[in-house]
Amino acid sequence: MAETTPNHTQTVFGWAAKDSSGKITPFVFKRRKNGVDDVTIKILYCGMCHTDLHYIKNDWGITMYPVVPGHEITGIITMVGSNVSNFKVGDRVGVGCLAASCLKCEFCKDSQENYCDQLQFTYNGIFWDGSITYGGYSQMLVADNRYVVHIPDSLPLDKAAPLLCAGITVFSPMKQHNMLQPGKKLGVVGLGGLGHIAVKFGKAFGLHVTVISTSPSKETEAKMRLGADDFLVSTDPKQMQACARSLDFIIDTVSANHSLGPILELLKIRGTLALVGAPDKPMELPSFPLIFGKRTVSGSIIGGMKETQEMMDVCGKYNITSEIELVTPDHINEALDRLARNDVRYRFVIDIAPKTNL
Amino acid sequence: MAETTPNHTQTVFGWAAKDSSGKITPFVFKRRKNGVDDVTIKILYCGMCHTDLHYIKNDWGITMYPVVPGHEITGIITMVGSNVSNFKVGDRVGVGCLAASCLKCEFCKDSQENYCDQLQFTYNGIFWDGSITYGGYSQMLVADNRYVVHIPDSLPLDKAAPLLCAGITVFSPMKQHNMLQPGKKLGVVGLGGLGHIAVKFGKAFGLHVTVISTSPSKETEAKMRLGADDFLVSTDPKQMQACARSLDFIIDTVSANHSLGPILELLKIRGTLALVGAPDKPMELPSFPLIFGKRTVSGSIIGGMKETQEMMDVCGKYNITSEIELVTPDHINEALDRLARNDVRYRFVIDIAPKTNL
Repeated sequence: MAETTPNHTQTVFGWAAKDSSGKITPFVFKRRKNGVDDVTIKILYCGMCHTDLHYIKNDWGITMYPVVPGHEITGIITMVGSNVSNFKVGDRVGVGCLAASCLKCEFCKDSQENYCDQLQFTYNGIFWDGSITYGGYSQMLVADNRYVVHIPDSLPLDKAAPLLCAGITVFSPMKQHNMLQPGKKLGVVGLGGLGHIAVKFGKAFGLHVTVISTSPSKETEAKMRLGADDFLVSTDPKQMQACARSLDFIIDTVSANHSLGPILELLKIRGTLALVGAPDKPMELPSFPLIFGKRTVSGSIIGGMKETQEMMDVCGKYNITSEIELVTPDHINEALDRLARNDVRYRFVIDIAPKTNL
Repeated sequence: MAETTPNHTQTVFGWAAKDSSGKITPFVFKRRKNGVDDVTIKILYCGMCHTDLHYIKNDWGITMYPVVPGHEITGIITMVGSNVSNFKVGDRVGVGCLAASCLKCEFCKDSQENYCDQLQFTYNGIFWDGSITYGGYSQMLVADNRYVVHIPDSLPLDKAAPLLCAGITVFSPMKQHNMLQPGKKLGVVGLGGLGHIAVKFGKAFGLHVTVISTSPSKETEAKMRLGADDFLVSTDPKQMQACARSLDFIIDTVSANHSLGPILELLKIRGTLALVGAPDKPMELPSFPLIFGKRTVSGSIIGGMKETQEMMDVCGKYNITSEIELVTPDHINEALDRLARNDVRYRFVIDIAPKTNL
């Protein structure tokens, strides 16, 4: 590594998992010098995504330890490279899941870098120089400016951090399926980090929003705190059947294994179910609700950079942020334990520099 | 039944399953008199669809015995009602899966009667007069003219019969996803009654066609007889991986249970997998190929009447018909046994009136 990355000379303090035990401990490592296309960011906040847990525990068998998780990063620019024209020192910025892509393929050219087949992620990826990428559970980041977005002044950086992954993940399929304007009925399956932002988007855009959840206890919160119009307990067949053929579009944010049949039945004919969760095991897809209803199940993962900036600007316009629980770095492991139990409303965000007065 | 259907006075000879034993035996029953909107059809041929097997054996628990199967019906009109203007005695016509729909809903108005929620099928349905519908394994049919199509003169009635179900089932999603013109790559999963017609459509429209099958033995036939460009054995991971991200659109005709993961990987980013088979049990849908590839799984069932006539006219233009094995009524049970083992190339068609000289 040292030979291929001779310019990794900046010492950074962070927090890493060193094996699959699931524990995060302090970790000192090197980042590259700020290159001509790079910006250096003093990280202030980093959201804790469920994906972090998968990597920390090596659930998908692809973790390269030590792994510094974190791809919902906000902070302040402290240095810009000579080629960088759209950012300046002091800018409030965010970095999401993307660290690098080929920049040449049809997807990169169309700013759908998230579908580039040479895409590298913000952590556990391989950067252009051959180094393993380290994420936002750390105090400083050097990022290619093409994968950085501006954060509108109206949005607090802590509550904006989860927008970089959870926000764009639900915004992208909503945009793709024309759900950014009033008149249609949106269903949101799962009321976690992603789902609660989908509800906020839906209400901001004037949609009728139905939350579908296994937890009856979430009804009051869904309606009172987030403004959902309806609430369905997915394990109650009567409730579900009463709403058959009623929704135009459903976004399914659940990463636990579940059958898609009862959810598909909620869709109108020709309706679409967008999957954005990533259950470890294959889901059950019964053919009848799909074929008899000419329905569609469509996948989507995060979003491209142009779309991410657009999403951030929309959030600025409508004042949409994540509901968060702020934790200090010494409570990361406790937060991870609670995250594993879905005991969080609705996103943990690490206050990376709690004593800094910026 | 007699009280609600006093006009069912025409005696018809047919073949029915009387219980779930799976056997078909001769059955004499009544059909309604030819009404003002009806046409009476002397049935000459009836295709044997895999769906017939499901109903005969009550696989889906919804069979009303005795059931007269058959929804791939061709024949000659022998009588027309006073309101019927688009058909005349002597016309060569076909009847597919649809017997009745509400005629008022958005789907009926748009000639997507197949998605009307009051849709009734050609057999095992409940007609407007309350009677159970009986299908094409019989010598005569009275059908509302709105669910009848013309068969182009260039198409033989025996080989055209399977187009009424198998043909429209693959044509409809191909049309929906803009696969009726050259330039794209089509995948066809399963080389049975539906699949082989999809291959013929693909080649007629100038598409590059890849057949995906569990049976290596079908390669020669797929390429030589049907003109497929490529052939993949779905159980060979090397072959499948070598073709990853290569197809624009795949039509999956397999009604046996199977995982969609390896098939989805064959699709380009944003590609679509159209499901037209109806496996009894839920299929396995892994999330990763769906979300990382922004791919879509879309269901579709048969087609509307306008689209069915369009499909039939396209078949007339390109001279597309089904490859069939013609059987006489006394060999229906033998054919069903072979159909259950997928031992047919590619569709059994019953020669309903073998001694008739028309």
